[in-house]
Amino acid sequence: MGEVKLIGSYTSLFCTRVEWALKLKGVQYEYVEDDVFNKSPLLLQHNPVHKKVPVLVHDGRPIAESLVILQYIDETWSGNTLLPQDSYDRAMAHFWAKFADEKCVMGSFMAAWKDGEEKEKAIESAQESFAFLEKLIEGKKYFSGEDEIGYLDLALGWIPLCLDIVEEVGGMKLVDAEKFPSLLEWARNFAEIPLIKERFPPRDALANYFHKIVGLKRSKK
Amino acid sequence: MGEVKLIGSYTSLFCTRVEWALKLKGVQYEYVEDDVFNKSPLLLQHNPVHKKVPVLVHDGRPIAESLVILQYIDETWSGNTLLPQDSYDRAMAHFWAKFADEKCVMGSFMAAWKDGEEKEKAIESAQESFAFLEKLIEGKKYFSGEDEIGYLDLALGWIPLCLDIVEEVGGMKLVDAEKFPSLLEWARNFAEIPLIKERFPPRDALANYFHKIVGLKRSKK
Repeated sequence: MGEVKLIGSYTSLFCTRVEWALKLKGVQYEYVEDDVFNKSPLLLQHNPVHKKVPVLVHDGRPIAESLVILQYIDETWSGNTLLPQDSYDRAMAHFWAKFADEKCVMGSFMAAWKDGEEKEKAIESAQESFAFLEKLIEGKKYFSGEDEIGYLDLALGWIPLCLDIVEEVGGMKLVDAEKFPSLLEWARNFAEIPLIKERFPPRDALANYFHKIVGLKRSKK
Repeated sequence: MGEVKLIGSYTSLFCTRVEWALKLKGVQYEYVEDDVFNKSPLLLQHNPVHKKVPVLVHDGRPIAESLVILQYIDETWSGNTLLPQDSYDRAMAHFWAKFADEKCVMGSFMAAWKDGEEKEKAIESAQESFAFLEKLIEGKKYFSGEDEIGYLDLALGWIPLCLDIVEEVGGMKLVDAEKFPSLLEWARNFAEIPLIKERFPPRDALANYFHKIVGLKRSKK
């Protein structure tokens, strides 16, 4: 199926979901680590629009945007289907993945670097968004609704990967055991899958990185 | 294929693309106009997450987010295929539609309500984004790359529909004939398609609406 290269960064939760997908599909690929603070000519050549990782390069043709890449991987390589077979369920998976990236990922980072009253509002808003995910996962093992993880589980995999680090860096709690029991149970189940766990980046390195970007955001305010 | 209802607003460029798709597919549907400034219980019931139009309700099951709806329509009803058949081309269509919504739609509205130096920056940034679309359409009739319009043409259909109104309301020019000849030629070709043209909302009503929301944004600054 041709040459596959992934330009990524171990600090990027958007890259990790792509790596999980490639591993689930059993795709052989070359991984190229990029430096977020000193972007390589390779990255700028392959993603001149956003200049961001991840970029999947398949037979010399680049694809950016992690959710677009996940769908491409699912449609290109057979085995371990990621998106649901039913078109309504597929639409729901796309809807919730977009929602989580826009409201939960961005909401958590916003809450981490804000201060005072703005921080309180950002925390409340992020928690309202997480509450939709809690409701969605109630009574299910995985977001796929199946016995195996799927597209939406991968898209939400940043929660066990780094939400607690973002909370620590931001000096706040967003998702606690009392209000989010099902979401946290899902996170534990997901993180125990060997293929998922083995691609978790070193915790200290990730914490250092988040401290750095939250600091940069704060200094720009 | 069951009952189809579209909850929309004639002022929403995100609704118009869904209507175009339904008409291209020949789907019979009931249209329910919602009031953006006084949202209906029907809308709040079917899109409790974002509380926004458009919502497509198919056999009682709601789908929100216009790009998600377009893909659902394409996968559910045959005839007049919207997304490309090739998986790489399909990924590119998704990439550019997301890019245009995030950078060109939002960028144009931002530029319209900002003032002074911030406005200059927003205009420059929006024009940089439109330049990617200009490059993409050079030498092609439609963004689909075919003789017929497709998913990406529908996603960009707001350009002939209302970009000049946003420019007028914002007292600025974003896309001119000198720098964007191919994009403007595409816009003219697209707007001349009878099925597209007949769903253009009244220009005065749209201008009044944009004046109102830009005014609201300015008063909140």
